[in-house]
Amino acid sequence: MNAEIITIGDELLIGQIINTNQAYIAEQLNTVGIDCRRMTTVGDNAKDISEAFVTAFRRSHVVCVTGGLGPTHDDITKKLVCEFFATDLVMHEPTLEHINTIAQRRNIAMIQSNIDQALVPRACTVIPNPVGTAPGMMFERENKYFFVLPGVPYEMKEMIDQWILPFLQQKHTGLVVRHRTLKTTGIGESMLANEIGDVDAVIGTDGTTTLAFLPNPMGTKLRITVKDPSAQSAEKKINQAEKVLRSKIGKYVYSDDEKDLEDVIGVLLKERSLTLSTAESCTGGLLAHRITNIPGCSEYFLGGFVTYHNRLKMEELGVPESMIADHGAVSKEVAEALAAGARSTAAADLALSTTGIAGPTGGTPEKPVGLCWIGYSDANSTFALKFNFGDNRTRFKDRATQAALELLRRKLLKMQ
Amino acid sequence: MNAEIITIGDELLIGQIINTNQAYIAEQLNTVGIDCRRMTTVGDNAKDISEAFVTAFRRSHVVCVTGGLGPTHDDITKKLVCEFFATDLVMHEPTLEHINTIAQRRNIAMIQSNIDQALVPRACTVIPNPVGTAPGMMFERENKYFFVLPGVPYEMKEMIDQWILPFLQQKHTGLVVRHRTLKTTGIGESMLANEIGDVDAVIGTDGTTTLAFLPNPMGTKLRITVKDPSAQSAEKKINQAEKVLRSKIGKYVYSDDEKDLEDVIGVLLKERSLTLSTAESCTGGLLAHRITNIPGCSEYFLGGFVTYHNRLKMEELGVPESMIADHGAVSKEVAEALAAGARSTAAADLALSTTGIAGPTGGTPEKPVGLCWIGYSDANSTFALKFNFGDNRTRFKDRATQAALELLRRKLLKMQ
Repeated sequence: MNAEIITIGDELLIGQIINTNQAYIAEQLNTVGIDCRRMTTVGDNAKDISEAFVTAFRRSHVVCVTGGLGPTHDDITKKLVCEFFATDLVMHEPTLEHINTIAQRRNIAMIQSNIDQALVPRACTVIPNPVGTAPGMMFERENKYFFVLPGVPYEMKEMIDQWILPFLQQKHTGLVVRHRTLKTTGIGESMLANEIGDVDAVIGTDGTTTLAFLPNPMGTKLRITVKDPSAQSAEKKINQAEKVLRSKIGKYVYSDDEKDLEDVIGVLLKERSLTLSTAESCTGGLLAHRITNIPGCSEYFLGGFVTYHNRLKMEELGVPESMIADHGAVSKEVAEALAAGARSTAAADLALSTTGIAGPTGGTPEKPVGLCWIGYSDANSTFALKFNFGDNRTRFKDRATQAALELLRRKLLKMQ
Repeated sequence: MNAEIITIGDELLIGQIINTNQAYIAEQLNTVGIDCRRMTTVGDNAKDISEAFVTAFRRSHVVCVTGGLGPTHDDITKKLVCEFFATDLVMHEPTLEHINTIAQRRNIAMIQSNIDQALVPRACTVIPNPVGTAPGMMFERENKYFFVLPGVPYEMKEMIDQWILPFLQQKHTGLVVRHRTLKTTGIGESMLANEIGDVDAVIGTDGTTTLAFLPNPMGTKLRITVKDPSAQSAEKKINQAEKVLRSKIGKYVYSDDEKDLEDVIGVLLKERSLTLSTAESCTGGLLAHRITNIPGCSEYFLGGFVTYHNRLKMEELGVPESMIADHGAVSKEVAEALAAGARSTAAADLALSTTGIAGPTGGTPEKPVGLCWIGYSDANSTFALKFNFGDNRTRFKDRATQAALELLRRKLLKMQ
């Protein structure tokens, strides 16, 4: 069963909004064995939208459309769907009631545009929107399914998860699809490919297994995919491929699912009943932010210090003034002192620190933009490692926090 | 002149990677007056890729392809481009030399897959890749242009900025396109539309101007677009539309370009020579992270405290133990004490604080998940405001930091 995703909105075509919806929908469809073969984005333009409907529904079993269902004048999807399925709009009472309830809860007046959102195409099955006002719609024609959803990401997600996936899972039987992703960091894509060597040794030659390299600033993901009629056989093949990969590049793998490093270190800290604190200069809070993205992190994360100004490095974390004068704030010595200071001030078992030159300016020939020292401290040792994370400020912060978390992972696992 | 963007990669079709490339390319083409009419994503599949090439180059003047140019086995774009343009691969010596230089600089051995990256289609114009090893390509046929770029975002961006935009700008003359975006926060989309009222009063009726509503968790953007043969007339129309909009909903507008709130408050703080510190509980460092995303923020941002554990709230920021016992850590009193403590500890002019229940668990009937107090402190006053940011942890942190920065903006501008 193939799917096609159509996302609608001028904001996408001028690049003002990043299209996260299509990725989410594709990922979810994939979990029930439906392959997304194509994604198309068109603007708030009747001709382009209608043409996309025709082409997509001709060549695919499932079409998912998002966008253009809002209460404002530029939202024309509902009208065009009516034309496409030769139907008209009728008032859907349960939806109207739902919109009324939401308006009351939010203490806002019902205006005409809110009421109009309860109009739905006569020929559709209404998909309830538990978290918003615009309902979704489903049309069924000759065992093909056409879904229309609002473009607001969390509304769309609710409807995919609660309604569309269970619906499609019931309708669809076929190949079992299994993905497994090994997330690596601290090694480049080419070198990783080189260490893996012959790909056929990993994926075999029967054509059911594929291996993809997905590089990004946080590292390279290796994705193994198996499509097989039998779940048991798919599981066996994916385990075998993972085993071969791990034998070659296992030490770079920090996660074998979609977990991020902050998730991985959270589990390791909890298992060991250890607490953590952070002292950040160049990463400016991103390290603490990533750590606190994990629900339940208060079990092991005590807190962090964003010591941007040198005075705070001295007063809060006890970095000696003379050390900053002699070595500079971006130095091995200060990185170590920050880590040790964060550990003792927060009374934590472990601490990480960052100090560097995130740029785009502020570098010197000896200390160029991109230079970063990452410090680590525990009861037995305190040390710092030197990195260069390049001259893009955002990427610098991403890579520096990734390297800090990877350093912690390796220490917790006693790897070198 | 119309453009079409084709992005290639199974990782996009299974939703593992969010497609940021297409947004970037569309945005940049738009700045030189080229409209992106359609975006298509296909997998690493020869048939689908070739079909997308044919369709796109038939209906569009400019086609931009990214992805599938890497050194690994699943990268097949170059081969398919050769077939499409009926040409073959030849070694491109300048590229080979460039790859050699990069390998030497990074101190890595040249392996065969690196050398193969210097093979390019005979019929193309090579687009140099200053920051990576895979070169780009340009094909010209009957005043139509077909570009092929690597999928690594920062490599693609360099080539768009340095080569493709100047090239297209020279080739293309036509309508002048002007966008202006008013970014609002603290008001919902429907209410905003209601306060704006009759859209024609904003955009006129000659069809050259459009207004779009773009809601997201940070607020709603209003985008005015004018397409006009004359730059002067376009400028006049966009200014007029902005003026009308501001007269209706001006107080919610924090930026009239793509600036984020952290950028806006940075400028305001610099102008006033004021310094800032932060005390974060529920936002866990995201507030400091956002503030420090702005280059030059060290001029006004002294530092922050991520006081996750109550002990740090007391020891570092002087929140009385009895206050936490009496009111709980998530309370008006503690939010105020955190802000006052951050201000005095960091010796800053102003401070912001956050304390709340980010979820997904930890709520009670009196203090549900989503509850958040945001504190503010300056030399004259210290206070806290109550919000509810919902039960999604990521969105909670985004919205809480946005509300904190907006509170600061309003105080700096003496708005109420």
